[in-house]
Amino acid sequence: MPTYDYQLLLKRLLEHGIRWYPEQKIYYRDQWEYTYTEMYQRVLRLGAALKALGVGVGTKVGVIEWDSHRYLEMYFGIPGIGAVLHTINPRLAPADLAYTVIHAEDEIIIFHEDFLPLVEKLAPQLTSVRKYILITDKETPPETPLTDLDYETWINSVMPLEDLPDLPETTQATLAYTTGTTGKPKGVSFNHRQLVLHSLAGASALGILGDNGGLTKYDVYMPLTPMFHVHAWGVPYVSTMVGLKQIYPGRYEPQMLLKLILTHKVTFSHCVPTILQMIVNAPGIEQYDLSNWKVIIGGARLTKGLAKRARDLGIKVSAGYGMSETAPILTLAMLKPYMAEWDEEKQLDYLIKTGVPIPLVDLRIVNEAGEDVPHDGQEKGEIVVRTPWLTPGYYKDPERSEQLWRGGWLHTGDVAVMDQHGFVQIVDRLKDVIKSGGEWISSLELENLLSLHPGVQEAAVIGVPDPQWDERPLAIIVPKEDYKGKLDAEVLKDHLKKYADEGVITKWAIPERYEFVESLPKTSVGKIDKKVLRAEFAQA
Amino acid sequence: MPTYDYQLLLKRLLEHGIRWYPEQKIYYRDQWEYTYTEMYQRVLRLGAALKALGVGVGTKVGVIEWDSHRYLEMYFGIPGIGAVLHTINPRLAPADLAYTVIHAEDEIIIFHEDFLPLVEKLAPQLTSVRKYILITDKETPPETPLTDLDYETWINSVMPLEDLPDLPETTQATLAYTTGTTGKPKGVSFNHRQLVLHSLAGASALGILGDNGGLTKYDVYMPLTPMFHVHAWGVPYVSTMVGLKQIYPGRYEPQMLLKLILTHKVTFSHCVPTILQMIVNAPGIEQYDLSNWKVIIGGARLTKGLAKRARDLGIKVSAGYGMSETAPILTLAMLKPYMAEWDEEKQLDYLIKTGVPIPLVDLRIVNEAGEDVPHDGQEKGEIVVRTPWLTPGYYKDPERSEQLWRGGWLHTGDVAVMDQHGFVQIVDRLKDVIKSGGEWISSLELENLLSLHPGVQEAAVIGVPDPQWDERPLAIIVPKEDYKGKLDAEVLKDHLKKYADEGVITKWAIPERYEFVESLPKTSVGKIDKKVLRAEFAQA
Repeated sequence: MPTYDYQLLLKRLLEHGIRWYPEQKIYYRDQWEYTYTEMYQRVLRLGAALKALGVGVGTKVGVIEWDSHRYLEMYFGIPGIGAVLHTINPRLAPADLAYTVIHAEDEIIIFHEDFLPLVEKLAPQLTSVRKYILITDKETPPETPLTDLDYETWINSVMPLEDLPDLPETTQATLAYTTGTTGKPKGVSFNHRQLVLHSLAGASALGILGDNGGLTKYDVYMPLTPMFHVHAWGVPYVSTMVGLKQIYPGRYEPQMLLKLILTHKVTFSHCVPTILQMIVNAPGIEQYDLSNWKVIIGGARLTKGLAKRARDLGIKVSAGYGMSETAPILTLAMLKPYMAEWDEEKQLDYLIKTGVPIPLVDLRIVNEAGEDVPHDGQEKGEIVVRTPWLTPGYYKDPERSEQLWRGGWLHTGDVAVMDQHGFVQIVDRLKDVIKSGGEWISSLELENLLSLHPGVQEAAVIGVPDPQWDERPLAIIVPKEDYKGKLDAEVLKDHLKKYADEGVITKWAIPERYEFVESLPKTSVGKIDKKVLRAEFAQA
Repeated sequence: MPTYDYQLLLKRLLEHGIRWYPEQKIYYRDQWEYTYTEMYQRVLRLGAALKALGVGVGTKVGVIEWDSHRYLEMYFGIPGIGAVLHTINPRLAPADLAYTVIHAEDEIIIFHEDFLPLVEKLAPQLTSVRKYILITDKETPPETPLTDLDYETWINSVMPLEDLPDLPETTQATLAYTTGTTGKPKGVSFNHRQLVLHSLAGASALGILGDNGGLTKYDVYMPLTPMFHVHAWGVPYVSTMVGLKQIYPGRYEPQMLLKLILTHKVTFSHCVPTILQMIVNAPGIEQYDLSNWKVIIGGARLTKGLAKRARDLGIKVSAGYGMSETAPILTLAMLKPYMAEWDEEKQLDYLIKTGVPIPLVDLRIVNEAGEDVPHDGQEKGEIVVRTPWLTPGYYKDPERSEQLWRGGWLHTGDVAVMDQHGFVQIVDRLKDVIKSGGEWISSLELENLLSLHPGVQEAAVIGVPDPQWDERPLAIIVPKEDYKGKLDAEVLKDHLKKYADEGVITKWAIPERYEFVESLPKTSVGKIDKKVLRAEFAQA
């Protein structure tokens, strides 16, 4: 049969954006602007420039760059010729960053000059790298023995490709590394088909199910989740497909972000709570009109306090959830149609939840036997998923891949409840949850409630072995300066008992043991290091 | 690797609808209502009932039914177990209808009692059919020697399946027959993957790029294009995926349609111009508020007159385009963001055009050499397409399949222009276009312009062989009663010359020859039969 075997390729998203609105604009800070048509030409140049360097199907190309129009070009241009875009996380410890480049076998590294000292230092170890390309925002790039090529000169030195080639849709498109608290970084990878389906399902959800009218062709998009972090949640692909005006902010600097939001009337972003916090706390923020700005929050829990502060400024916030292994979107907090009648306060309670699965996401919350827990908002289980956009495993790591995918479901390691409205709420990480007498007790929940006591500076809760109940919770408390010596177990038990009486937690969750310390051990990214705490306190 | 191989199956759309809004309602006329959850249970019963009859992967199940909740169940339930839903067009001539059942080798026929006399008459020829199932809207089904099973009894006689099975996404899901003016009906078929991608791309377009805020979760959907006609344009699948309230109107009766639109506050429909005409001409229509009703018009050209009439009633109309071979959506008339500033009149001129391709539709307009014509709104060519949802050919008809797909592009047989805004406008069918001196002259355009002369009752334009120019247009005119004997070639040439002076057509398009007749020959579906005209007038 002569029929055309249409493959789901990233270029198809780009082609639609160009066709829909060729004159639409893309901006980079206050330094650069161009049209979709011009962007496409540069993607075709990038493809040609890569080919001229001998990059072909499967070649790994590592990128270390801030959020930029160039990164967008690389999102399409590198996978566009069948090569693999390795989005390198510059926040990794240098040794880990080197590990990822070596493990990925990157042959080309394209990096922003801000990372020149780092790359120069690591280069001797990076033996797979054949060529370095420097990105600069300045007129002349800095001198370096690493390379004589900068991105602009490089892509302008070739004739653009006629178009991007057809490839099998299962061609690997991207590679990224994720770090846990233990072990080496793990590589997750996605192919063209997966990213196209992620974009289409994401677009369907954002456009039809989203709140405040959903995403529309009139929206102006600016990512505030770095593009080196799981495809900036895939939204640059969605935004390009539907031809949105796009703003890329470079390195995140509060004043620049705010300036761009206001100048370009940005209406749609996504970020972690910390970035939103930074913006809502910017001096003089009250004088600006942010009432057209929709922001999806992920990466960590959106607290009601932060959500309210943002709401008071007019910002339309809601939560979302996903992880590096899942491309990333799994759920978005979107109000069901009947919730439109609820009062704003109750709506906000739902908009800050983990959310509801988007189309094509088959999400279950299961107990240790792999059975679905009741959808009562109480019973806890691990989130396991099937969607068409999950990493097939960890790159060159069959053992941890097997573990990730046991039983044919991707295990997120997140512990959650689901309520009768179908809303998921994450309550803990599986490794932190305390398994006691057949129940799962959320360490996060206890930590949150303990922090509400006026005398508590910081709290960590871990499970410690218990001969009768397997585990029991132990609370480790840093008291506030003026409460030192005044806090004791009885005070905190009484404090938690109030919440148990209100039904927020079960009585069973209240720890018997409390330890008071000067400070809590932290990991390199500033999270409480429970491994250290467990080593110290696990023996009763 | 233990990873789950996620296939794009229709059940995934249904599962999302259920998950999103299990209590959402579906209505059938004023006779039936139930929730998505109940619908899903009936889909699972239908699957079990089919299996009990020995229906398996690839078995063809023919359905003759009006638009109903039952048809929606069959949209999911029949392909859901791997069988093929043959949507039978009851408007076919009985001999053609019998041909399609025989050609498809349908083993089961599920039909509405309105078609009982027809089915009883044809049954003796339908030797592949093992079982007939009767659908009735009444308490007791009519007696017939054909069958003792009615749909309700049938699906209630089994235990529902636990869930719909996993299948390869390339499993055939639907089969339908399309008629041309010549030859036997042609079978077009679509698999699960195609229909899922059609739904996702359609949802992305309708939700984000659509006008008046686009499709949202608050919309109420009622099809007005029959479900036996290319999946009711695929919208029942989209609507179910995003959990819309849905209204199925049964047999189209103007009073019932209007009642349902008003009672259920329908906000989203699609239909051919004739149905819209019927509604806007309903007596007393002005007294109703139709200002929340968005209607997409396809199947034939949306004239400005009809669009304005609808607009005056508050209805939000726009055009769309597709065909049986294309699942069907190819284009939708959606305003580009910059057109928001245009005045309403100019916007309407664009909303009634054929439209712009939706995501994943690669659409070209090519001349006879297969080269793209300039996008100048003038030069004509044939629309050829590639999308992931095109029929792989005509069922059991390799010769016409080869013709349809020549050169690896699906040939629509529609002649169109594309303007600088990327809007497609169909101007003719390829078989009717007149090829003269290297130019393509649109017969449709000439017919439209000729009809604007006060003395013209009806006009047909055909190409007749010309030794110098290959073909030249010949106009065949039915004069109005009081103009008989008064119309002549010179009058009509002058009439057309005005439009040539205004640039609406080229001078070259004006026919030299005019024939005046009492009436025009028509096909069985009421279209002008140009084959007959060509046979009569082609010899100069």
